[in-house]
Order: sequence, then structure tokens, then C-alpha cells
Amino acid sequence: MNAICREDLKACASALDAVRVQRPKVHCITNSVVQNFTANMLLAFGAIPSMTINPLEIADFVGGADALLLNLGTVDKDREAAIPIAMQAADERHLPIVLDPVFIDRSPGRAAYAGTLMTHGLTIVRANRSEWETLFSHRPDVPAAGGFETRLLATLSGTPEPGPNGGSVAVVTGSQDLVVGAGKSVSFAGGHPWMAMVTGVGCGQAAIMGALAACSTSPFHAALAGLLVFGLCGERAANVARGPGSFEPALLDALHDVTGADIEGMGHHLSE
Amino acid sequence: MNAICREDLKACASALDAVRVQRPKVHCITNSVVQNFTANMLLAFGAIPSMTINPLEIADFVGGADALLLNLGTVDKDREAAIPIAMQAADERHLPIVLDPVFIDRSPGRAAYAGTLMTHGLTIVRANRSEWETLFSHRPDVPAAGGFETRLLATLSGTPEPGPNGGSVAVVTGSQDLVVGAGKSVSFAGGHPWMAMVTGVGCGQAAIMGALAACSTSPFHAALAGLLVFGLCGERAANVARGPGSFEPALLDALHDVTGADIEGMGHHLSE
Amino acid sequence: MNAICREDLKACASALDAVRVQRPKVHCITNSVVQNFTANMLLAFGAIPSMTINPLEIADFVGGADALLLNLGTVDKDREAAIPIAMQAADERHLPIVLDPVFIDRSPGRAAYAGTLMTHGLTIVRANRSEWETLFSHRPDVPAAGGFETRLLATLSGTPEPGPNGGSVAVVTGSQDLVVGAGKSVSFAGGHPWMAMVTGVGCGQAAIMGALAACSTSPFHAALAGLLVFGLCGERAANVARGPGSFEPALLDALHDVTGADIEGMGHHLSE
Repeated sequence: MNAICREDLKACASALDAVRVQRPKVHCITNSVVQNFTANMLLAFGAIPSMTINPLEIADFVGGADALLLNLGTVDKDREAAIPIAMQAADERHLPIVLDPVFIDRSPGRAAYAGTLMTHGLTIVRANRSEWETLFSHRPDVPAAGGFETRLLATLSGTPEPGPNGGSVAVVTGSQDLVVGAGKSVSFAGGHPWMAMVTGVGCGQAAIMGALAACSTSPFHAALAGLLVFGLCGERAANVARGPGSFEPALLDALHDVTGADIEGMGHHLSE
Repeated sequence: MNAICREDLKACASALDAVRVQRPKVHCITNSVVQNFTANMLLAFGAIPSMTINPLEIADFVGGADALLLNLGTVDKDREAAIPIAMQAADERHLPIVLDPVFIDRSPGRAAYAGTLMTHGLTIVRANRSEWETLFSHRPDVPAAGGFETRLLATLSGTPEPGPNGGSVAVVTGSQDLVVGAGKSVSFAGGHPWMAMVTGVGCGQAAIMGALAACSTSPFHAALAGLLVFGLCGERAANVARGPGSFEPALLDALHDVTGADIEGMGHHLSE
Repeated sequence: MNAICREDLKACASALDAVRVQRPKVHCITNSVVQNFTANMLLAFGAIPSMTINPLEIADFVGGADALLLNLGTVDKDREAAIPIAMQAADERHLPIVLDPVFIDRSPGRAAYAGTLMTHGLTIVRANRSEWETLFSHRPDVPAAGGFETRLLATLSGTPEPGPNGGSVAVVTGSQDLVVGAGKSVSFAGGHPWMAMVTGVGCGQAAIMGALAACSTSPFHAALAGLLVFGLCGERAANVARGPGSFEPALLDALHDVTGADIEGMGHHLSE
């Protein structure tokens, strides 16, 4: 485990500032519960969302986008038909792809489907510990024994390279978040308990990681930036909110206001 | 009609407090308009929502849940395929099932579908007066003549028993809410007009009745607790809101903060 | 180009006041991202939304409605099956139909579909400049050469009459909004940049134009009233919000509070 260093913060800050200038388009195949909130998080952060899941339109939308998000909540026939078309359109243009295998620990069928997606080159996979453990169990190449991090690294190294910037990045969310990339891993604790009381905060974080990956040459720092942004914005939003209800608009306000300089200023998270 | 008595308040308060401790999982087959708000109401209240309508996944999700909500807004082919699978999975584990037959007074096809669901054992059926009258007209066993309450009781007594806690409970929403159960009925007036200006407040109330029923041995008091919680939280939210827009986050904040002691303190609603 | 005159403001104010009294029902076939926010905008404004896209139910719902909104975001098989049934039900009762061809500039298939809808009599078509230019290119009767307004007028005059109140109205949204009707066009600038940072503000505006058209004999003034209402409410909401997140509930509050007298008081937008 590495500490977050000043260069990491700088790279994360650059990705954030680039989003505000480049306004990347993020196409989201995401669940019906969080489409609205995800779109609003992307807009507040300076990115441009699109959300169609129609298999007949998806290639056009991904063909004009800068990143692709695949979220497996409420997967249905249309989404299953759209996902391979979307992935191919993303591959053709070397777009970053972020996978968020929501609730695969609740449904073996959904877990198996996530397993097949993992045979594709993915830029960032974001899941909680229980979802990662479910993913491990669907990988014959991952040893059944061994600690969590050993199995996580085995899963990553057995996953195809996702394109020019190379190397999938794993994000493990929890009370202590973890980013694991090629030869490097860091952990981070931040945010606020109300983030778990608003549906879709994590789904939006994955979408924003896509926006950041579209504006960065380092998927590792795009993923880390996503964690830092939500850690900082979660704390700021909680300061002005009265509960999880007023926390939601406050989080959007904070995503709108956060700057690269704010991220560089998160020196108290350095472990130097 | 009985008055709400101190023992009723106590039973309702216990159900609420139990939700905060047990964190029941409520699987919601609900309409696409309110999925997000329903999930947020459940989360704020201490329950855990899931929302898939995929027929291939639904048995897994209901199999791991503590209550099932069926809301008939935006019923489509996937939802119609999912509902019987979900009901069977709920029956196998004796889960409470709450039915919210939204807008059946606007569509004869939807009303007929609701009628078939009523031949199943349901724990709580929540509808407004016009929706109930539509339900009556789809029941050959309910006399066409007679007052509203006579026909409501005939509908309930002709509905199969929903499991170990026995006896369906009918909730009639309106300016004066009504809970009718086996041998007992109470009425309650509370809340705020803005509750009718935010889509899905009633849908979320039905979901929260499911959470309460999962944590109570009395469906009657689970239903009544849902009315009391929304009555009190609606009033509190209106006190800090400026209109129906700011009422929505304020209602979520209030659902997060309300306690069993608050419900026990609603003595001014007693008619002793 | 005409200036907005005092009579225009009066006609717009009357439409708004009539919505509060008549409470028109607006059936919305709209995209899954904005269903909730659209419903809440209609409710806050005094109208009654319904949202089903089920082809089997749609005729019943439109048959009981006062206006129909067609929004082409996330068009899928159910929506494509529902739209012609809904349009026929609307035609039979001479209901106003509003078309919002969202993102047709991103998908040739969706653009072609919008083109076929334009061969039907539509009351109001609301699109941004880029979407309108895409519509022109799908119309063989519209000259490839000529300025934007020339081509817009050619598109309108080649579109069938939409019923008793006659004449389609075109709304072109942008930093300067434009309403073009039979023999008259006005422009209007208002609102706030945060309106573009909340998904679905424009979609809701189209729905509210439907509500206004249901309560007015002039589709031109219904469309203009929709622009004025959002211009004024956007400014008011921005005054109490801290960012795009808190802007959303504030906009709903403003839509709830705005009155016909407020619209009549927008004299500073007159160019007399």
C-alpha cells in the first residue's frame, strides 16, 4: 500500500480542471433508479451525460461520447442488448469504460453477467468489498484461497488491457476506500455517512470517474480523483445539510464548486 | 370506527424503532417515475431498498428481502412477468406484501389486473377512495349497493388471508386517512397539502408500510404507523420548506429524524 | 421579428391563471431520466401528470387527459408502440400535442423518427437550434439553402394543421429563445445558466407548455408563456439557490408560486 503523495494530488487536480474545460460526454447505461441523479451529478461537475439504452441508438451515442459507464443495477433485455454494442463502439475510439457491478452479491445471474464483462478490457471497475468477493468467485483463474488484496490483484492481472493508457484500475469502496492499479495502490477515508443514505451516490461517483478518465492519461488518478472529489464534496455538503434529503442538493452544489486547487489542498490526507 | 388509543401509538412506535435496528430490506416493484424517491425514502427511514424488475433476477432479490411492495404505476411486460415470481418468493418466506394500485381509476385494464392481484393474500392494500371504488367494481362478491365501508369490509373479508399474522389491512388515503383491519378501524388526519404536490409521496408511504410490516407482528399497526409517520413528517417538513420543491428534501430529512418517541407523543391525535 | 407586447403578456398570464383553476391533466410519454422531475414540475405548477408508456394503457390515459407531451429521449420499443396510439387518442379529442425531439442531433435514427412525427399535426415543437437543423435536413420540402428562420418557416408551413386552434408553433431554445407561429414571432432572453446544469428543465418546460396549451385558445401564447414562466422562475430560483443542486427544488418552489400577475409585470421584456 502506498501513501497518497503530492504528485498524486496534482494529477487528480489536473484531471478535475480538465473536465471543466473539455466538458467530456459520458454515456451512461445505468439503472433506472439513478439515471436522473447521475445525469445531475455529471452536469454539476461539468460533464455532459447521455442515457439512452435503446440498442438501435446506442452506437451513435457512444460514437459521439468520451467515456462509457456500465452500471448493472436493473439490467434488463434492452440493457443487455445495448452493452456489447456500446463496448464495441467505445473500443473503436479507445474510450475509457467504467464498470459498476451494483448488487451482484444479491443475484447469481447478475454476478455471472458481470464476470463475462470482466473478460473485456475495462478501465475502472468500482465495487464494494462484497461485490468484489462475488466477482472473485466467478473467476476460475483467481485462487480460492489468499487474502482480499491477493485475489484482487489476481483478478486485475487476469483482465485484458483496456487500451492505450493500459492497465485496469480497481476501486474498492467502503469506510476505507482503496484504489489498486498497475504496481500501485492507495487508500483513502473521507466523506460522510449520509452518502450511503442517498441512492445513487456511488453510481454517480463511477460516472464521474468516467468523466475524469476521459480527461486524464492515468486511469489510476482518474479513479483516485473520483474518490477525493466525493470525499471532499461529501464533507462540504454535510456541513450545510440537515439530513440525507437536503444532503442530495448540497452534494450537487459541492460538485459544481469543487476545484483542482481544493484537491491539491487535501494535504491532510497525505501520509508522507 | 375506533379511536386511536395509547396502545396503538405504542405498537406503532415499536415498529418504527425496530426498523432502525433491523434495517429491513424492501424489494419494490414500482413505477419508473418514483423509483428514486422511494429508494431515498426507505434509506432515510433506515430500510434498504432494491428495485429490479427483471423477471430473471426478481426471485433472488425477493428471496433476500424482508418485504415486497407492488406498485401498479407504469406496469409493463417486465413488471407483469416479475410480479407473480416475486409474490411466490414472498409467500415462501411469509414476507408481508403491500399493494398500491396507483391510478386504476384511470385504466380499466390496470384495474382488472389489480383485481386479480386481490385474489392473492395481501398484507396491506393502500389506495385512495376512487381507486378502492374501482376495486369494488371488479369484485363479483362485493355488493353493488351499500356504503363505502360496507363494501370495503366485504372486499377485505373476501380476500385470502396473507399468512401468519393474518388478515389483510386496507388503507384508504384522503384528507381523512382510514385504516381498516380485522375487527378494528381507525381514522387519522394529518400531513400537509404539499404532500400531494410531490409525485411519489404516497408510493413511498406504501414502501415504508412494507418496512414497518417486516418489523411488526401487527399489519394493522404497521399500516397505521405509516400514516402517523407521514402525517408527522409532512408537518415538520412543511415547517422548514418554502414550497413543494424544498418540501421533498425536507420530508426525507424528517423521515430520517423521526423516532418512536415522536409517535408516542402524538397524543393530540387520540380521541379518548 | 415582433416585440413582445402588453397583449401578449396578458394572454400568457391568462393561460397561467387558467392552469391553476382548470388543473389540466398532461399525459407525458417522456424519457426515463426526467419522468420524476417532469411530474414534479407539472404538480408544482398546478397540472396533473400521468406517465405510463404501456401501449395497452396509453389510450385510456390520453383519453382522460387534456394535453399530450412526446419527448424523444430514451425512445424504446414500448414508447414507439405507445406514441401512435397516444397521438390518435389525442387527435380524437383535439388535445394539444407538444413534441420535444431531445438529442436528435446525436442519433440519425432518432432524427428520422422525429421527422415522421412532424408529418402529423403538432401544436408546439420545442427544440434547440441544433435539433431544429437536424429536423430541417430530414424534410425534403425544406430548401437546403436559406437562413435558419427561412427554413424554420418552411418546415412549419409544410407541417399539417394541428386542429381547431390551427397552426403549429415552433419554439427555438437557446441563450435567446424564439417563438414562431402563424404570422408572428417573438424572441425572449431570460433564465439562468444553472437551468442547463439540471437535467430535464427543458423537458419540463415542454410539459408545462402542454398544460398551458390545454388552457388557452392560442398555442402561440401557451408556448410564449412557457418561456416567460421559466425565465422568471429560473431567475427567482437562482436568487435563493447556492448552486445547480439547490436550484432544482427552488425552481419547483418558484413554479408553484408564480402568478399571472407576475407575468403581466414582466414589462421590462417589452420592446415597445
